[in-house]
Amino acid sequence: MSRVITLLTDYGLRDSYVAEVKAVLVSRAPGVVLVDVTHDVPAGDVRAGQYLLARAWHRFPTGTVHLAIVDPGVGTARRALAGAVAGHLFVGPDNGLLSALPDAARWVSLPVPAEAAATFHGRDVFAPAAARLASDEPLEDLGPPATDVKRSPLPAPRFDGAAWVGEVVYVDRFGTLVTNLPGDAVEPGVRLVAGDREVGALRRTFGDVDPGHLVAFVGSGGTIEIAVRNGSAVRLLGAGVGTTVRA
Amino acid sequence: MSRVITLLTDYGLRDSYVAEVKAVLVSRAPGVVLVDVTHDVPAGDVRAGQYLLARAWHRFPTGTVHLAIVDPGVGTARRALAGAVAGHLFVGPDNGLLSALPDAARWVSLPVPAEAAATFHGRDVFAPAAARLASDEPLEDLGPPATDVKRSPLPAPRFDGAAWVGEVVYVDRFGTLVTNLPGDAVEPGVRLVAGDREVGALRRTFGDVDPGHLVAFVGSGGTIEIAVRNGSAVRLLGAGVGTTVRA
Amino acid sequence: MSRVITLLTDYGLRDSYVAEVKAVLVSRAPGVVLVDVTHDVPAGDVRAGQYLLARAWHRFPTGTVHLAIVDPGVGTARRALAGAVAGHLFVGPDNGLLSALPDAARWVSLPVPAEAAATFHGRDVFAPAAARLASDEPLEDLGPPATDVKRSPLPAPRFDGAAWVGEVVYVDRFGTLVTNLPGDAVEPGVRLVAGDREVGALRRTFGDVDPGHLVAFVGSGGTIEIAVRNGSAVRLLGAGVGTTVRA
Repeated sequence: MSRVITLLTDYGLRDSYVAEVKAVLVSRAPGVVLVDVTHDVPAGDVRAGQYLLARAWHRFPTGTVHLAIVDPGVGTARRALAGAVAGHLFVGPDNGLLSALPDAARWVSLPVPAEAAATFHGRDVFAPAAARLASDEPLEDLGPPATDVKRSPLPAPRFDGAAWVGEVVYVDRFGTLVTNLPGDAVEPGVRLVAGDREVGALRRTFGDVDPGHLVAFVGSGGTIEIAVRNGSAVRLLGAGVGTTVRA
Repeated sequence: MSRVITLLTDYGLRDSYVAEVKAVLVSRAPGVVLVDVTHDVPAGDVRAGQYLLARAWHRFPTGTVHLAIVDPGVGTARRALAGAVAGHLFVGPDNGLLSALPDAARWVSLPVPAEAAATFHGRDVFAPAAARLASDEPLEDLGPPATDVKRSPLPAPRFDGAAWVGEVVYVDRFGTLVTNLPGDAVEPGVRLVAGDREVGALRRTFGDVDPGHLVAFVGSGGTIEIAVRNGSAVRLLGAGVGTTVRA
Repeated sequence: MSRVITLLTDYGLRDSYVAEVKAVLVSRAPGVVLVDVTHDVPAGDVRAGQYLLARAWHRFPTGTVHLAIVDPGVGTARRALAGAVAGHLFVGPDNGLLSALPDAARWVSLPVPAEAAATFHGRDVFAPAAARLASDEPLEDLGPPATDVKRSPLPAPRFDGAAWVGEVVYVDRFGTLVTNLPGDAVEPGVRLVAGDREVGALRRTFGDVDPGHLVAFVGSGGTIEIAVRNGSAVRLLGAGVGTTVRA
């Protein structure tokens, strides 16, 4: 059975960058199956990349290698990492992008060869490491152990005595606001408030309200989402990442 | 020989949705070959999805599974379907998206498990069904037979006694107007009219007119298209889906 | 080991065009591995396509077939080509797109079948040829030898007695200006000038300047690039393809 390598970057799809990374992967790990998570993370937005990686990685088969590159500090002193946790393998920069993974992860620090382009570790450092892991090389062969890996967990919701207080952590292409409030934290009938705007109680899905209306539901990532049926909650509410949501 | 699964959605490529679907496919049907038709169907535009699926499916090898998800009614009472026709297999919502397929198709209704996310049947209902079909499970094992599948065929052209009257059914990324007028309905020399604007007689290709000029030809889908060489017919004519075209 | 076919087009990802090409490839060369270089070359921009192909092709394994289609003259008298050089195979139109390849390439002219859509040689002429090459058919079996293949090399820098004078040949998604000045042409400490704006001496990477500042470095393609850390050099400098850069 073929190994899977997933790719998550902010390289976009217009240029040749993603293809140069894939060229390294198919050259050095022939037979590997490549699956794009996304290449449209907003440029340098480590937090958005972290959210998307956290949603996707655990749904892939055990043994999958996840190559994640949102790396505004490329070529500086920030470390290049490879890691393993829960039977999955990860490669990426030490800038918080990988900090949505379980604490039990083991990490190694990847050496940066002198000939690596200082602005393209994706091709010259991370992709070669991913290909080695997909070729069954042990993690420990890739570099010395790394400790104190940078952690910048997504913000956690809190209970303020009267209500759960969370925030929007991601906005998707439909303009839906994804919060960090766990679906099971909110009792049936409790009315949600996003910013200073009441959204109503939880429903099941878009189709439970009329077109153009706000709807809140437990989203496919397990947390509460606020959307507009056939519309955009971002535009209707003027909300975005960081907007407070109370339940 | 590996099975192919094609994917057509309106999920976009920015978020993790497509990857979460593909994670299910590669986990449950290892060795499958994934080919994207597109993920940039305008959000909720069932008609555009239907047109694109109709163009693409029959060009793939026999045995291909086509996973098509443009599903504004996700989580409501609309059925989830799987079907077979002409040696190809199809999975998607019962909202007309699949109605460009031949009438001879056999359909089954997919059960929706209680744990499926009400807003993401693509991942939790349709992808598992596609993986089962790609793993050679018989269609009939996936659910009870479904009849009265929703039909919303693309509009058909008519002959009004003097001319063929059709309409624009799709606009592509180049701003080219794709009509529903079959190429062989129009005799050589007949002048086309789009809205109230004369377009001229059929030519072979873009290069038969000067840059910036309108050109009509029999397009690669077999119907008449109206384009502007090195430009956009949408912008030049102010036309779009639904504009009448006479020949 | 599976053959790789890369795809580079200006078809975009919204429509079914790329999928129709891939349907031909997976039907006629089952088991082939498809890797997208990009489908977002600006419509008809042969020069941009040429630059991207030149960057990417040589990083793929020997034996890879590169299918490159930016073809504003589709259906006219321009030839359809297949070629071989350095163990790689190429298919595309004879309009300069393929002229970034080494001179030693051997070329054949592909016949255009009567039934090919005059506006979609990508699907009906180029993809079938790529599938044959990926199935190990000899190049010479695909058509008669072609000479005088169109050459339109990227502009070369020159030394004007006082400085190297080059120009911007590509702008990437980050707004970075990619020049044709080789990295090793510029001595340490020499200050670069883009248009009439001084950029400073070469640095290693983005992180060597403060956010919002201009930075020049030897890019991952081996030539000098001018960028803005966490910003866009295109916007800051009002520069673009063709802007003179002196070093």
